[in-house]
Amino acid sequence: MHDTKLTLLEKGLALLLEHGYNDVGIQTLLNEAGVPRGSFYHHFESKEDFALQVVDLYMDRVHEALRACTEDRSRPPLDRVRGFFELTKDQYRQDGYLGCMLGGLGQELSGVNEAFRARIEACLDTIGACLASCLEEARQAGDLPPDSDAGEMADLLVDCWEGAALRSRLRRSGEPLEAMLDFYFGRIQAAV
Amino acid sequence: MHDTKLTLLEKGLALLLEHGYNDVGIQTLLNEAGVPRGSFYHHFESKEDFALQVVDLYMDRVHEALRACTEDRSRPPLDRVRGFFELTKDQYRQDGYLGCMLGGLGQELSGVNEAFRARIEACLDTIGACLASCLEEARQAGDLPPDSDAGEMADLLVDCWEGAALRSRLRRSGEPLEAMLDFYFGRIQAAV
Repeated sequence: MHDTKLTLLEKGLALLLEHGYNDVGIQTLLNEAGVPRGSFYHHFESKEDFALQVVDLYMDRVHEALRACTEDRSRPPLDRVRGFFELTKDQYRQDGYLGCMLGGLGQELSGVNEAFRARIEACLDTIGACLASCLEEARQAGDLPPDSDAGEMADLLVDCWEGAALRSRLRRSGEPLEAMLDFYFGRIQAAV
Repeated sequence: MHDTKLTLLEKGLALLLEHGYNDVGIQTLLNEAGVPRGSFYHHFESKEDFALQVVDLYMDRVHEALRACTEDRSRPPLDRVRGFFELTKDQYRQDGYLGCMLGGLGQELSGVNEAFRARIEACLDTIGACLASCLEEARQAGDLPPDSDAGEMADLLVDCWEGAALRSRLRRSGEPLEAMLDFYFGRIQAAV
């Protein structure tokens, strides 16, 4: 990827995470990135196109974390699933506990913008599908009740995480994230 | 409350729920409410003041639902807690599954606006405290394990609900709400 484009996307990711979509002007982005306006429109059709590509960059990082955790066959499958969220929590801490950009843009834009609604839903769905395959492995290994629906359990995990991420953003703390993970993993295992 | 003020707040509630904060202009609000600009500034200092008063109106309705459910001593305490969320789910359905305005404004604004961050956190905290007293009653009645921390369980419930509300908004469906409630109430009771 072109350096200028990557600079804009990375600066955009930080700005969108903190400010949301409508509060960020292209001029602010250009000032912070030290890039002229013409370059922006060379790489992006519009602010919406830009923000959707920021979502792609965010998802590249999510996929990297998912791969690092879920493909580590040395750990039991439930540990791998929790490991992904522990890694994500660490990222949130580094960001200053601003929560999840997918949740932020999903909340702000999905009432009025179908492109964002569909894209954010697809992102969460993708994350859930990846986690579901680990949960299914756990079920087959006898770590979850035999009648567990791995897909439903993964959706639920993603949804509860997003709520904990919001609370983490409101409190600027990792505590809601940890509490949610302790509850979820404690209760699914306790039900074995 | 003055009729014009109430009209503006009610129209504002619908607009903020669908559009979020930054996407709504005062002129749009005035056009939809059929109210002249001078009236707006007679009742509100600023757009921020207005939106914070919309949050107050939203919370009035939340408190009404909380009272209707949690004070109904004819039902066991856990049923009363779930009843509040069932009532809220019904409201979301009537709204067209746009999720929770507290979660929406919290996500959009809490990165950059301390007044909203503190207000939304206080709202969620208030809801949690009200639910915690019912959960504590359930604990004392033996419906929850004796070492349960009602405050922590209430926070967790509110947080997971907010995540399910986001997913409900993304999918325009009540299914994520129901799945979250089934999991939470199923697992806390199963642990008795």
